[in-house]
Amino acid sequence: MSKVEKKAATEKIILGLDPGTNIMGYGLILVRSSVVSVIQFGVIRMGKQGEHSLKLKKIFEQVLSLVDKYHPDEVALEAPFFGKNVQSMLKLGRAQGVAMSAALYREVPITEYAPKKVKQSVTGNGNASKEQVAKMLMQIFSIKEQPRLLDSTDALAVAVCHHYQNGAVKSKSKTWEGFLKDNPRRIKIV
Amino acid sequence: MSKVEKKAATEKIILGLDPGTNIMGYGLILVRSSVVSVIQFGVIRMGKQGEHSLKLKKIFEQVLSLVDKYHPDEVALEAPFFGKNVQSMLKLGRAQGVAMSAALYREVPITEYAPKKVKQSVTGNGNASKEQVAKMLMQIFSIKEQPRLLDSTDALAVAVCHHYQNGAVKSKSKTWEGFLKDNPRRIKIV
Repeated sequence: MSKVEKKAATEKIILGLDPGTNIMGYGLILVRSSVVSVIQFGVIRMGKQGEHSLKLKKIFEQVLSLVDKYHPDEVALEAPFFGKNVQSMLKLGRAQGVAMSAALYREVPITEYAPKKVKQSVTGNGNASKEQVAKMLMQIFSIKEQPRLLDSTDALAVAVCHHYQNGAVKSKSKTWEGFLKDNPRRIKIV
Repeated sequence: MSKVEKKAATEKIILGLDPGTNIMGYGLILVRSSVVSVIQFGVIRMGKQGEHSLKLKKIFEQVLSLVDKYHPDEVALEAPFFGKNVQSMLKLGRAQGVAMSAALYREVPITEYAPKKVKQSVTGNGNASKEQVAKMLMQIFSIKEQPRLLDSTDALAVAVCHHYQNGAVKSKSKTWEGFLKDNPRRIKIV
């Protein structure tokens, strides 16, 4: 049996997502008691070329595939609330919405975190650079080589941030309804 | 057998969507040769209260349910590209992305239209009011009573606009791949 299949009731899998228009980072962590380990992290590339619809389709399919493969209990989303202009925010909103759809479709609850909150939570400094976030994660998880694309470590960071924020919460609910009942205030923008 | 089940190869069903943060209009039309009829139109209310995630979940589920019930060949999306501020555009982008996900998941191709284009196409005036759009549609389809919520007629309008724009295109492709092959330039922002 795989690590995922063996997951006990006291364990929790968190999927961190950092959706962008051209690239989306993802990071999966396993929380067993207070021990956190990395299951997988990486990026999904939509490519800079190509039709917008096809990019969105790819985001949906890839997130659904991650959810169906690893059965995360919770999704943590890195969600910037400010952008350069309305055009880029519309595009970012679409990418976020599509990624969220796949999790919501499988009834996995989502918590959103602003980038500053993630950086603060992982490094202690809300203005830390992506490199500093990556270095801290490499230290926590004994990762030897820094990934070329820091979207993956950003996604891992939001999963870790979610664990730090909610580590004390003992959620036994495994369904969407149960989660809502147990955590009426958990679906929120932090 | 229902009207939908009896759909012949020469017929086409278009689902028009006008996604918003609190309410989403939808309109389904059946195109048989050059005759267009309304299958159904209405609104999906997300409610002004309630968690953001739950609203997005509702949009996804409702659009998926419309797609699975009526098997539209194509989706036409009313998509404003300008908004008051980045915050509202991010929210609108999410609602659009979630609605698009459900269509993309079922491999239904999406074409986007700017509101001005829809108004121009249906009424001949790109600056027409929602009421004028509704009145024109009531005339075209012999609808006797004006719906209270004009999001539904807006959605019907984008489906009609899509028909007008693409009526001459003879697409025999019934799959996503076939559609892309037959219409390499169709997935676009109009």
